[in-house]
Amino acid sequence: MNPSGLDKEIILNAAEEAIRRFGPSKTNITDIAKILKVSHAAIYRHYENKAVLLEAVTERWLSRVSRPLEPIMKENNDPEAKLRCYLKTLCQNKRSSVIEDPEMFENFAILTQNSKEALSTHVEQLFAQLEEIIRKGMETGVFETDDPREMAVTVFTATSRFHYPAFAKEWENPNIESLVNSVIDLILNGVKKRN
Amino acid sequence: MNPSGLDKEIILNAAEEAIRRFGPSKTNITDIAKILKVSHAAIYRHYENKAVLLEAVTERWLSRVSRPLEPIMKENNDPEAKLRCYLKTLCQNKRSSVIEDPEMFENFAILTQNSKEALSTHVEQLFAQLEEIIRKGMETGVFETDDPREMAVTVFTATSRFHYPAFAKEWENPNIESLVNSVIDLILNGVKKRN
Repeated sequence: MNPSGLDKEIILNAAEEAIRRFGPSKTNITDIAKILKVSHAAIYRHYENKAVLLEAVTERWLSRVSRPLEPIMKENNDPEAKLRCYLKTLCQNKRSSVIEDPEMFENFAILTQNSKEALSTHVEQLFAQLEEIIRKGMETGVFETDDPREMAVTVFTATSRFHYPAFAKEWENPNIESLVNSVIDLILNGVKKRN
Repeated sequence: MNPSGLDKEIILNAAEEAIRRFGPSKTNITDIAKILKVSHAAIYRHYENKAVLLEAVTERWLSRVSRPLEPIMKENNDPEAKLRCYLKTLCQNKRSSVIEDPEMFENFAILTQNSKEALSTHVEQLFAQLEEIIRKGMETGVFETDDPREMAVTVFTATSRFHYPAFAKEWENPNIESLVNSVIDLILNGVKKRN
């Protein structure tokens, strides 16, 4: 392709294709340049090295995980329903991405382990959203906690089984959906204000 | 050694030594026989093949994990304190076993993945103990749930982050102790009866 038509999006798509073929550790800039029929230099104009490019691939994947959560944050429903919906979507979304494309899921899981910064930015965003929902619930008198930030982290931790890639194998369990619901019920019961 | 002095305990100790040296997949009966200075046949008299022997090694490890939980089950304290203490001990015990001997922990984690039966017997035992504590709490009116067995599984699942070997790396986090406490507080809040 004409290097002047090259943009970050096109490079990331080609990087994903290369990762699918060769795996994250064996993929290099040459493979991506070959797929796009451009020189190395054309790629380096957008990403200074392989590490930076892989970090960008990881960020894009993580943003695909968090995108479906954004409309939930904007909905004007009650905090209890919102927290339930948020946690269900987070767990379901990870599960469907492994079912749809298990090999790529594994590649992304490896990339995420190597991109600590992209991962911590992503997780911080999830914590902030959970904290926002919990604070709303405290304002409307349905939730009760001394520390909404700590509660956000706690709620996220209690659902780890359903959104950490290390558990992906367990998501094939046919009872997983009902287990997700039971854990969310327990969490909601735990955060709800006692009269 | 004289093969007549050989017993299962001695063989399991030697098997652990061989696993430490060669890893679970490369360990074979010859290595264990060499450590004990006995013939293969002497080992086969106690364990019919490598798979059966590794299963026994796994069972012994899992029983080391569950042994400290037994005195908690026998204590005569209130169900809330008992549930808290049970979950804390379960999480702490796994954490200290990885800190004390990280390489062997990893070996055991691999063995456990390959011994589905030993693992499911172990997990069933934990579920049964948790269910017993929850039932006691229902009898004394402190806990409330429609299905104590399901609640036992749910509580166990919500603490996965702290007892699944796949998470062992995260246990080095200096905040882990306080995170364990927050998740247990949330769980207890969730299972306690509302007035």
